Amino acid sequence: MSSGYFEDVEIGDGQKAGPYSVTKDEIIQFAKQFDPRPFHIDEAAAARSVFGGLSASAAHTFAIFIFLSNELQPRVRAVAGLGYDELRLPHAVRPGDDLYLEATTLEKRESKSRPDSGIVRGQFRLHNQNGDTVLQCIGSGLVARRPNS
Amino acid sequence: MSSGYFEDVEIGDGQKAGPYSVTKDEIIQFAKQFDPRPFHIDEAAAARSVFGGLSASAAHTFAIFIFLSNELQPRVRAVAGLGYDELRLPHAVRPGDDLYLEATTLEKRESKSRPDSGIVRGQFRLHNQNGDTVLQCIGSGLVARRPNS
Repeated sequence: MSSGYFEDVEIGDGQKAGPYSVTKDEIIQFAKQFDPRPFHIDEAAAARSVFGGLSASAAHTFAIFIFLSNELQPRVRAVAGLGYDELRLPHAVRPGDDLYLEATTLEKRESKSRPDSGIVRGQFRLHNQNGDTVLQCIGSGLVARRPNS
Repeated sequence: MSSGYFEDVEIGDGQKAGPYSVTKDEIIQFAKQFDPRPFHIDEAAAARSVFGGLSASAAHTFAIFIFLSNELQPRVRAVAGLGYDELRLPHAVRPGDDLYLEATTLEKRESKSRPDSGIVRGQFRLHNQNGDTVLQCIGSGLVARRPNS
């Protein structure tokens, strides 16, 4: 079993989390606060839009991605996120969706500025119960090194 | 004054939105729901962490970016977001921060699949009252074309 420290992270390692069940109320409540466009907050307007029904804000989908990234198993000792590349949202998140996150380690390297941690780059894919990708990106973060004993 | 249609978007155009005032309560409430790590939800734990105090979740900062992107002036007739590249969060968002969004148009091209819209790519920078960048990215989105008259 992996310690989760940087030294034990291996290229190709896989992690999983989920499901996260998305309700209509959560979609509407989130969008009212951060993305109050009709197709995110009004069922009738959403039905008439190009989306053909209520869909979650991209910000909401990203927030669920962050939530599940904290739940990934096996655990990695992530210290802080550094950034995200090639973030795409190919399918909309709908009321009633169950979302699952998959992560795969792409690369690891030592940090010049922080001797207590290393930099790990991974591919993330958030998908629904039908296997449709609702968010994908490449993320980089600091992972704690094993303390000197 | 620009119509906001794709035809009238020009490379180098600038847009602005803000301020968005971030409260301690909002930081804690958002993080409890989507990113419940001690440095986002517990002031004492945050003071002891590498962040030296409470800071907003990356997901919260991204949500504020989306909120302000809907408020940008002069307005552009955005239809849907397509994706985000080189997303970075160089400075933490702190309780009491006032955030401002700046956007600059980098490139525009017609959409092969959607004759009613074009694709616009822009540089986005979210900064606080001191000018520190708290989020930056390159975003792409569909912008409505002027309807045939």
